[in-house]
Amino acid sequence: MITIDPNQTPTAELHQYLLGAVSPRPIAFASTVDEHGVANLAPYSFFNAFSSNPPTLIFSSNRRVGDNTTKDTLHNVEMTGEVVINVVTYSIVRQVAVASVEFPAGISEFEKAGLTPIPSELVKPFRVQESPVQMECRVKQIIPLGTEGGAGNLIICEVLLMHIDERVLDEKNRINPHKIDLMGRMGRAYYVRASGEAIHTIVQPYLPVCLGFDQLPANVRNSKILTGNNLGQLAGLVEAPQPAAIEALRGETYIREALQSQMPLEELHRLAQKELAKENTELAARIAWLGAQL
Amino acid sequence: MITIDPNQTPTAELHQYLLGAVSPRPIAFASTVDEHGVANLAPYSFFNAFSSNPPTLIFSSNRRVGDNTTKDTLHNVEMTGEVVINVVTYSIVRQVAVASVEFPAGISEFEKAGLTPIPSELVKPFRVQESPVQMECRVKQIIPLGTEGGAGNLIICEVLLMHIDERVLDEKNRINPHKIDLMGRMGRAYYVRASGEAIHTIVQPYLPVCLGFDQLPANVRNSKILTGNNLGQLAGLVEAPQPAAIEALRGETYIREALQSQMPLEELHRLAQKELAKENTELAARIAWLGAQL
Repeated sequence: MITIDPNQTPTAELHQYLLGAVSPRPIAFASTVDEHGVANLAPYSFFNAFSSNPPTLIFSSNRRVGDNTTKDTLHNVEMTGEVVINVVTYSIVRQVAVASVEFPAGISEFEKAGLTPIPSELVKPFRVQESPVQMECRVKQIIPLGTEGGAGNLIICEVLLMHIDERVLDEKNRINPHKIDLMGRMGRAYYVRASGEAIHTIVQPYLPVCLGFDQLPANVRNSKILTGNNLGQLAGLVEAPQPAAIEALRGETYIREALQSQMPLEELHRLAQKELAKENTELAARIAWLGAQL
Repeated sequence: MITIDPNQTPTAELHQYLLGAVSPRPIAFASTVDEHGVANLAPYSFFNAFSSNPPTLIFSSNRRVGDNTTKDTLHNVEMTGEVVINVVTYSIVRQVAVASVEFPAGISEFEKAGLTPIPSELVKPFRVQESPVQMECRVKQIIPLGTEGGAGNLIICEVLLMHIDERVLDEKNRINPHKIDLMGRMGRAYYVRASGEAIHTIVQPYLPVCLGFDQLPANVRNSKILTGNNLGQLAGLVEAPQPAAIEALRGETYIREALQSQMPLEELHRLAQKELAKENTELAARIAWLGAQL
């Protein structure tokens, strides 16, 4: 391990370690207007939801590391107390990158990025028509985190109204990650496309409590075949398999073959691993617990 | 578009809309101890970096929507003012899911999740040995965002020390997204694995200013072939191609064939699109600008 002491590390370098480690980050495509009504549009990835009651989003418009100046977005929310936060999808990510450029004051990022401003219902800043979720917000508080270059300014926003494109919803009106196809921000020039094969589903009920690693049989916990994730799946079960269900496996040809093989424990663990890959966690557990009788 | 008014929407439903829209979220695997030194470990995805000077991480431990109770992590940071934030990688995500289970007080999530507590240098809470980035933090402030179920509690942390496993670094000592292989949290039971083909690289200098959509030739901006992202790549160039470089293309056989085809503009745009897919943005621009002379 290397150790990074923030007091001994240049801010620009520390910044990149933080960006690389705290990833992937959601992107707030923040639309604001100044006191004269001039529109601004810029992406921020020091951003997240933090509360659902009241519905609260927070993003940070940081002081520039180079010259310790602040950005138009911060000025605008200070003057107007309003912002529309639009989400960033794969289909517009290159346009969002153009909007991130530091154009001189008075230049419209909507025009430069080829995006369409549409009126909001409750606030002055425009929504981005091409974004499938647009959140009209009131700024409740702005908290400076420091005074030097690189210092954040927390912009705490209450969501007044959410607009969602029906095309990103499933048949139960829930947002589907493959349909919404969001982009997340990583370190340096990296983004992640959060759809397709990158999406994993992990069903882990919070209650009732699950078995845990300590309730796994010792030769399962110490398996040379099963990974930490495999054991995590087994440990996530709410109860151990029933003895009768374990015994019933002995009637299966593939289990008998495994038991008669050169290395029956390893063979059973390989079979359990295959079932875990298919999310057949209960069958995998019966196979693993059978191995515990060897 | 559908419109969601937070005042008219049950908190649990609003919560899921926020989670589905504000994604992918980085995961803080927060290690704390209580006033008696008993360890706790739990994942939180209302989390991000917000400042690099001072280095600031914020996560929220929310009041439960169901019964408006609070969690052990919040109690522990209130009592001790310390936390270690560990990152979550693909290799341990199932174990992290086990640690998210609401075990009764006194049960060790380290033991239940099969993870190894190792001592920190500056704070009492343990680091997670299996996590490749461990950040020792002092809690600077805790800000409640509300008093009802679903309300967040912002836990504002200053990073005192970062520990990084060399194996996630590239040859220049920078965190490589494929090596660190982080998991992000999405809505419902979805996670995203932020490595491999899901990673995209978008190089967009912030300065000097780029062309923008308004400086694209009209028949490029209105192309039936080129997408918003294709146009975004072209608009992201710092200058338009030089006339001589555009003219030189006419010497190329594939360009001559395109110009002599039935639909030369569309054919040139298809050629430009192929080059954009390979990030040959300057060549693509020359081809597109040649089409503007038709």
